[in-house]
Amino acid sequence: MKRLTVFAALALLSANLLAGNVITDSIDSKILGCEVKCNVYLPDGFDGSTKEYPVVYLLHGLSDTYEGWAGHGNMQTIADRLIASGEAAEMVIIMPNAGHPNPREVLNGYFNTPGRNYEDFFFQELMPQMEAKYRCIGDKKHRAIMGLSMGGGGSTVDCQHHPEMFSSCYAMSPWLDEKGEVGWNDKDDQLAVVCRSVHENSAIDFVANADESTVAALRTVKWTFDIGDDDWLLHLSVDMHYKMQEKGIAHEFRVRDGDHNWYYWPMVLHYALPWASVNFGK
Amino acid sequence: MKRLTVFAALALLSANLLAGNVITDSIDSKILGCEVKCNVYLPDGFDGSTKEYPVVYLLHGLSDTYEGWAGHGNMQTIADRLIASGEAAEMVIIMPNAGHPNPREVLNGYFNTPGRNYEDFFFQELMPQMEAKYRCIGDKKHRAIMGLSMGGGGSTVDCQHHPEMFSSCYAMSPWLDEKGEVGWNDKDDQLAVVCRSVHENSAIDFVANADESTVAALRTVKWTFDIGDDDWLLHLSVDMHYKMQEKGIAHEFRVRDGDHNWYYWPMVLHYALPWASVNFGK
Amino acid sequence: MKRLTVFAALALLSANLLAGNVITDSIDSKILGCEVKCNVYLPDGFDGSTKEYPVVYLLHGLSDTYEGWAGHGNMQTIADRLIASGEAAEMVIIMPNAGHPNPREVLNGYFNTPGRNYEDFFFQELMPQMEAKYRCIGDKKHRAIMGLSMGGGGSTVDCQHHPEMFSSCYAMSPWLDEKGEVGWNDKDDQLAVVCRSVHENSAIDFVANADESTVAALRTVKWTFDIGDDDWLLHLSVDMHYKMQEKGIAHEFRVRDGDHNWYYWPMVLHYALPWASVNFGK
Amino acid sequence: MKRLTVFAALALLSANLLAGNVITDSIDSKILGCEVKCNVYLPDGFDGSTKEYPVVYLLHGLSDTYEGWAGHGNMQTIADRLIASGEAAEMVIIMPNAGHPNPREVLNGYFNTPGRNYEDFFFQELMPQMEAKYRCIGDKKHRAIMGLSMGGGGSTVDCQHHPEMFSSCYAMSPWLDEKGEVGWNDKDDQLAVVCRSVHENSAIDFVANADESTVAALRTVKWTFDIGDDDWLLHLSVDMHYKMQEKGIAHEFRVRDGDHNWYYWPMVLHYALPWASVNFGK
Repeated sequence: MKRLTVFAALALLSANLLAGNVITDSIDSKILGCEVKCNVYLPDGFDGSTKEYPVVYLLHGLSDTYEGWAGHGNMQTIADRLIASGEAAEMVIIMPNAGHPNPREVLNGYFNTPGRNYEDFFFQELMPQMEAKYRCIGDKKHRAIMGLSMGGGGSTVDCQHHPEMFSSCYAMSPWLDEKGEVGWNDKDDQLAVVCRSVHENSAIDFVANADESTVAALRTVKWTFDIGDDDWLLHLSVDMHYKMQEKGIAHEFRVRDGDHNWYYWPMVLHYALPWASVNFGK
Repeated sequence: MKRLTVFAALALLSANLLAGNVITDSIDSKILGCEVKCNVYLPDGFDGSTKEYPVVYLLHGLSDTYEGWAGHGNMQTIADRLIASGEAAEMVIIMPNAGHPNPREVLNGYFNTPGRNYEDFFFQELMPQMEAKYRCIGDKKHRAIMGLSMGGGGSTVDCQHHPEMFSSCYAMSPWLDEKGEVGWNDKDDQLAVVCRSVHENSAIDFVANADESTVAALRTVKWTFDIGDDDWLLHLSVDMHYKMQEKGIAHEFRVRDGDHNWYYWPMVLHYALPWASVNFGK
Repeated sequence: MKRLTVFAALALLSANLLAGNVITDSIDSKILGCEVKCNVYLPDGFDGSTKEYPVVYLLHGLSDTYEGWAGHGNMQTIADRLIASGEAAEMVIIMPNAGHPNPREVLNGYFNTPGRNYEDFFFQELMPQMEAKYRCIGDKKHRAIMGLSMGGGGSTVDCQHHPEMFSSCYAMSPWLDEKGEVGWNDKDDQLAVVCRSVHENSAIDFVANADESTVAALRTVKWTFDIGDDDWLLHLSVDMHYKMQEKGIAHEFRVRDGDHNWYYWPMVLHYALPWASVNFGK
Repeated sequence: MKRLTVFAALALLSANLLAGNVITDSIDSKILGCEVKCNVYLPDGFDGSTKEYPVVYLLHGLSDTYEGWAGHGNMQTIADRLIASGEAAEMVIIMPNAGHPNPREVLNGYFNTPGRNYEDFFFQELMPQMEAKYRCIGDKKHRAIMGLSMGGGGSTVDCQHHPEMFSSCYAMSPWLDEKGEVGWNDKDDQLAVVCRSVHENSAIDFVANADESTVAALRTVKWTFDIGDDDWLLHLSVDMHYKMQEKGIAHEFRVRDGDHNWYYWPMVLHYALPWASVNFGK
């Protein structure tokens, strides 16, 4: 009977021998004045151990929620497989909510905007509470950040503001500035607030304007910018590459076959998790 | 407004510029005495043209149906992307039904079994009707076959019986014989019929017993056997590799990181479609 | 003894079962008034057959010669392996000389310059003579061109001038214009002649200035531009990508990890030969 | 002039911005009674720092010497590139001599044989002296071993004898036992000594015969066995995979396109160094 049971499961995603777990948690944020949901990937063996882990923050895009990566992005299967094969370190992956499917009515985004200081929440509430709760090692070396589109921009800016807190940043198809790409800056709804905040927090200008000590701090982080050749945000990553190069900040730049969609991001996650893992070991 | 529309679609799989189409068709089979469903992938530009195309037969596994590859297997996105980038040829992909989610009650399989001559149906009805209807070139050079698990075994055997009809065969995690792997041969239900037919049509024995002229014919096909290192059917592909090697039949053998599941097969489809495409050009 | 012989060869590059051959040939050019050397890769089985083959032109860079690809570039091992595994079509690969290790004293380049009409030689003498001699099929579908650096620019321009002759063009780290990249335009030696000719034959301007019928012709070719993220010519490929996009000419753009060197080009040849092969089959 | 200098170097392997260094050192071995040469890769920034590094032992094959990996294997370019891009950790790589181009006259090998206790030398002299001299961290976590052919077998056995000393072992095309593969066991020269020692130190039998506590120790190491589908030693890796699986020792098994040669090993080194690096971070 045992064989049959195994065989009958073939049409489904079979369980790996080493399988992590995605749980949904939430934080009652004083800064935001609301509850913020968060998916958390815990690696195989997390329960019933006292081991401490490296942590990756994995950020979603505009019009999306904390459920995107574990849903469309298939992140659990990818993380399970890479950890089981030794290509990625055992790690905790935190996927906080910063959005809503309807960005015109409900505010999105990773930056501080009037009445919604999300960046403050991220550093002052989310990170310390989550890292304590889920046994993260909690130093720069063992902490990485990555994300897609708006979350790629958010990852970059978080890391620019706190290079002392992350060993690496992997920006996928990142929205690094807003100068007409979405083209909603001058409207009068919540999406316009996001657009203006992305422009005000331009990751590209941040590098262009960085003084010597800021540049020195940015050099302590490993950076990758990765985007599809059919992505309409490609020029932003190109500009970022030029600016980083001018300032002498080492970084990786990749253009693969792809567009701004869920075909691209899971593929790239296969590169990003091992790369972040190597940096945990340095 | 245009930009916003584009942007609002980001959380979904965005449409590629070149997008094929998966349609569901069926054949009223005289040989099987029933209707057989079939998914067909038609490449971008198929409608409204008179162009003829190479064809790939893409077979599903046990406990699954013609819907598996287009559903779990995400084959449309993969084919669209590979064709758009020039890594795969424009092609028609035919995914016929040979199964049912409940294989103990409803008969599965690609071989002739008492009262259900599926192999006859495949060559005498499915292939000619589909290739005529969907403008396939229809020669050996422009026809490939591939499949997973039971469909990997089916592909191999179809190609062994008719090497004059296919330029290449790509067997993924193939069930090439049944000697206890499923362990259901001696039961008294429909699954036992399948198990016995897989053993009676052993692709491994076929090679072992091939005479000189059969070997010569098998050498006119390009073969790949591709399976995960955690797959419990791995030893069958190993045995096949040894037998093919003994007989001097050139073939590719790959063991990648993976198991017998839907994480493995879409990954492998990325290799199989370009490889079949190169063989169309020879 | 047999085993020992095999084993003793391990420290060397072992012979593949299917091994092509690189021969050195030359053409007595009336147009150039001199003999031009040329390496030619002939696939396994070429001798003693009457088969006709697809052809790839594989161009070297500045300061280099027809020997670069077969030497530093290791092209024979790569082609043998890809053809043996079915990832690339059996093909003839032609590597003509267009240079010299000392480009300041001896003229280099793929374009017509005063007293040295290399492009005329390429199309009027090299191509017809070589394709006749080495049994190339000789139609657009079965002819591709690719090259590195100056040869990447040369490939692109040859294909822009004669889109009716090539099914695909793969430009590696291409020198697509000269606006200070080498910075030698205003000197008074042979290298300055090359630099000026690269600028006068700007592949980027060619696209920018293309009228509707030229654009239609360019769309009949498959294009890839592939360059390393540390390559100082990266901006030229970026500009080309933008221009091709503006004109609606489908193409692939890749930025991988790498620099302008012999680490990058053999790696990229692994992608370029299969990609050209798929296009032979269309 | 600067540009020209850069450009003139294009036909050569250009220097990466981050470039390590391969130096040749030697040990005056009391155990072996002779001097043993050793190549050592030191990462960029090694000189003039006090930083301690992880260490990888990289072993050559039969008929080869300590120069193989840095010569045919191109290991410096590969390590430089992977470290610069963040795919591999900064590390020291030690390539000791265990052989000679003429293995019938001069003894080869990694095991203890009468009058030549190489394994004792390796653990008692080479490792402590090299790790002290080249500032290696020197714990299990930050030490890996890998090698090709005879060195793949040597890596595996070293790690089986001392699982408490290595976090990972990557065996490439490994010679894991000698049961007729070289077929020289019964001769009367130095090669026969090697052959017999490989059989007596069978890595496959070691696993088959391992008791519970040995199995527990072997589970503390990450293992990969990686071999080409045309390699005549493939069956040894297959047998090893089966034995490891029976004993429940997690490991990776890969079969790629390739043979037993220098086309395969540099390709595999691209996978092995990042993989070892991730394990340094665990």
